[in-house]
Amino acid sequence: MIAITPKTRIGWIGTGVMGASMCGHLLRKGYSVVVFNRTRAKAKSLIGLGALWVDSPAAAAQQAGVVLTMVGFPEDVREVYFGKEGVLAGAKPGTVLVDMTTTRPSLAREIYAAAAARGAHALDAPVSGGDVGAREAKLSIMVGGDREVFEALRPVLGIMGPNVVFQGPPGAGQNAKMCNQIVIAGTMIGVCESLLYGYRAGLDLETMLSSIRGGAAACWTLDRLAPRILKRDFEPGFFVEHFVKDMRIALEEAQQMGVSLPGLALVHQLYTAVIAQGYGKKGTHALMRALEGLSNVSL
Amino acid sequence: MIAITPKTRIGWIGTGVMGASMCGHLLRKGYSVVVFNRTRAKAKSLIGLGALWVDSPAAAAQQAGVVLTMVGFPEDVREVYFGKEGVLAGAKPGTVLVDMTTTRPSLAREIYAAAAARGAHALDAPVSGGDVGAREAKLSIMVGGDREVFEALRPVLGIMGPNVVFQGPPGAGQNAKMCNQIVIAGTMIGVCESLLYGYRAGLDLETMLSSIRGGAAACWTLDRLAPRILKRDFEPGFFVEHFVKDMRIALEEAQQMGVSLPGLALVHQLYTAVIAQGYGKKGTHALMRALEGLSNVSL
Repeated sequence: MIAITPKTRIGWIGTGVMGASMCGHLLRKGYSVVVFNRTRAKAKSLIGLGALWVDSPAAAAQQAGVVLTMVGFPEDVREVYFGKEGVLAGAKPGTVLVDMTTTRPSLAREIYAAAAARGAHALDAPVSGGDVGAREAKLSIMVGGDREVFEALRPVLGIMGPNVVFQGPPGAGQNAKMCNQIVIAGTMIGVCESLLYGYRAGLDLETMLSSIRGGAAACWTLDRLAPRILKRDFEPGFFVEHFVKDMRIALEEAQQMGVSLPGLALVHQLYTAVIAQGYGKKGTHALMRALEGLSNVSL
Repeated sequence: MIAITPKTRIGWIGTGVMGASMCGHLLRKGYSVVVFNRTRAKAKSLIGLGALWVDSPAAAAQQAGVVLTMVGFPEDVREVYFGKEGVLAGAKPGTVLVDMTTTRPSLAREIYAAAAARGAHALDAPVSGGDVGAREAKLSIMVGGDREVFEALRPVLGIMGPNVVFQGPPGAGQNAKMCNQIVIAGTMIGVCESLLYGYRAGLDLETMLSSIRGGAAACWTLDRLAPRILKRDFEPGFFVEHFVKDMRIALEEAQQMGVSLPGLALVHQLYTAVIAQGYGKKGTHALMRALEGLSNVSL
């Protein structure tokens, strides 16, 4: 029986753009939070909201009944969990560990097993919705692990977004997130190539979009990112570097499962060019830059 | 000055699934219509609604103030316009010719020039929305040609769909349609690869879709076609063969314009496999079959 109550102290690791917004919602709901981040300065706004600083992930886990982590890359997740001062070093029997970073399904399973060996519980719970979704508590949260643990954590996760879905055993949340990213890889190249074609064909692109955005070509990318591309606004949104990390994970997993994903592989390669051109810290729609470079065209 | 009134007789060429629905709307609005189709039997329902049969495209053009054509492939369009008994052979000065087939932008410009040489007018006005959009008069119509001619024809086109947009000079309607198809090529491969990955990862695909369909991966293809793929329902919708034709046109145009579209080229190749597997007359979401075949997996 896992009891999570409004009195349960929460440990939060990772206070980047996403993590700071997400943790802020928990604090505003009245949860007591201890917080750790690699760069302490980034935790300042949360400390202002009442979070208590601790000096390591292990210390957070020692003091909390639930530990949520939202860091960057799989290497960061590994360090946060398995490092000398990591979450697992501090986790007690019954502690619930929730990694909300998008990371490898195999790493999620590894954390699950290591937690179980200490009598603790683990969920993988990556999110989609980006910085805006995090700020507005409108994230979609995809959860893998034990259903009982999921049910216990659902009220806490629900504070960060309305669409919290149990996807199956450990790693299933990560795999659902990969499915999300694979679709986006497709919509992104479709939208960027369409704009490039339309531009070279001499169309007024706003007018073109007014014809196609309501029909079978309709997609979030066309609605939200095409207008930003036309304004040459490539600020993130969602970082190219993080998307490339997600695609690499999906491709490696797919290879292990014996599934060929030629579309994803192509888009991944084109994003290598996006990074080569210096747009790694820009938004994902900077894919447009690689396609423009490829044909020596600029919208 | 081009005057199109409710008394103007309309010629309609091409009574396939799309054309029959579209022409039916004009008849129900009270327009007098003369109709021709290669296979006369397919015009039967329209004749039942009051259309008069004529024996050739030329005869339709002789008797009508506006001729609308909705046929299959660019070769068919060429025959319907430039054939011995074609539309242009019958067109009088002032006749307005509207090709609603998705075809080559260069062919649209050729028809425009040939019409002008006879004192007639031509618009290219391809549609998106498929069989359902045609039946429900909800097509999106993308128009190229002279703006004055477009304005005169707008009321007639508006009967077939609410979103009638002038895209620019002759061929611009066709180019806008190509932009539409390029986006769809992207969404289609993204959705199919996502389902394949999710299946092999052991996810419940309905549950996975419930997590991703509301966020940044949202698209018409995910909403409308993914559920049909899960039911193994590959009936068209929109025919693979027609989509392949559209992609080929877009790729040839892009090559002439000096624009590389690697994503579209890949998807086009995969659809060659869809046809090789015998699914040319199935719906576009049969792309799933090619991807399944590629990895020897079946959902």
